[in-house]
Amino acid sequence: MSNINLYNYIESISNFPKKGILFRDISPLLANFEAISELRNIFLDEALKYKIDYVAGIDARGFLFSTLLSQDLKVGSILIRKPDKLPGELYTRAYKLEYGESNLSIKKSLDIRNKNIILIDDLLATGGTLKCAEDLINDNGGNVTLSMVVIELVSLKGRHKLSSNFYSVLKYD
Amino acid sequence: MSNINLYNYIESISNFPKKGILFRDISPLLANFEAISELRNIFLDEALKYKIDYVAGIDARGFLFSTLLSQDLKVGSILIRKPDKLPGELYTRAYKLEYGESNLSIKKSLDIRNKNIILIDDLLATGGTLKCAEDLINDNGGNVTLSMVVIELVSLKGRHKLSSNFYSVLKYD
Repeated sequence: MSNINLYNYIESISNFPKKGILFRDISPLLANFEAISELRNIFLDEALKYKIDYVAGIDARGFLFSTLLSQDLKVGSILIRKPDKLPGELYTRAYKLEYGESNLSIKKSLDIRNKNIILIDDLLATGGTLKCAEDLINDNGGNVTLSMVVIELVSLKGRHKLSSNFYSVLKYD
Repeated sequence: MSNINLYNYIESISNFPKKGILFRDISPLLANFEAISELRNIFLDEALKYKIDYVAGIDARGFLFSTLLSQDLKVGSILIRKPDKLPGELYTRAYKLEYGESNLSIKKSLDIRNKNIILIDDLLATGGTLKCAEDLINDNGGNVTLSMVVIELVSLKGRHKLSSNFYSVLKYD
């Protein structure tokens, strides 16, 4: 049983990345060994409820946790990347942004068919990115078993977009 | 003693991100539990030669290793990020790209003064990014003790730009 309150390691910064947005920054959490260690154990405990083949980290802050969790689960990890970052043959899926659209890709050469996959990212807001990642995996033969984030912005209801099991460690309105 | 040859887990892809470049892709390594585990142990063995206070990951593929290594060393980790990614007060340093320039930032609120810091990234090419990260830390009171990468493109001589100790796991011409 830990005495660490992870909320104490989140910094809230007004008007970033633009006016009216209250940004939740995980930098203080990352800078503290005991805090990351606690977060790591929480992610692992949740992931161990499932039979998992891969951990997929979402570009870029998901990478902070995907390799770590994949090692703890004794499985490999997969990169889900933004445009023009991955080489070779790709599966790609577009998603809408506030203005315009973007896309996420994974490498075709990875064998995700019938594999149980955890998606991991730092934050869930409207859920557009995580929903896109989920569809990208599921539509190409994989099975997103669980999606996990450090921070959930609950009032944006992003979790309702997802079809996989969902887990968040810290919740804000 | 491991029997894993990590070179077998690097995929070489021609003409990415542009014509004439042979891209060394770590995706197969990441997808294999034993391969990441071997890489993790190599990084840790090297890092344990020094007294380290923080591991700093360079945006974005450095994040794949920074949290993992920081946990193994029982220290915190720091994000070194590209433009417009970090909130709040920042230390920022510019570096030249082939066309134009970019910059890297860290948060001022992190206490790096007189701290011994490891920089970690996936690849060293010409060394422009890693040199910028090193200057960013050193010029703001920190001390880059060691820089480590998975892959070094030796013929580009990037390591000669660096003033810190340097270690690469895999070497290509």
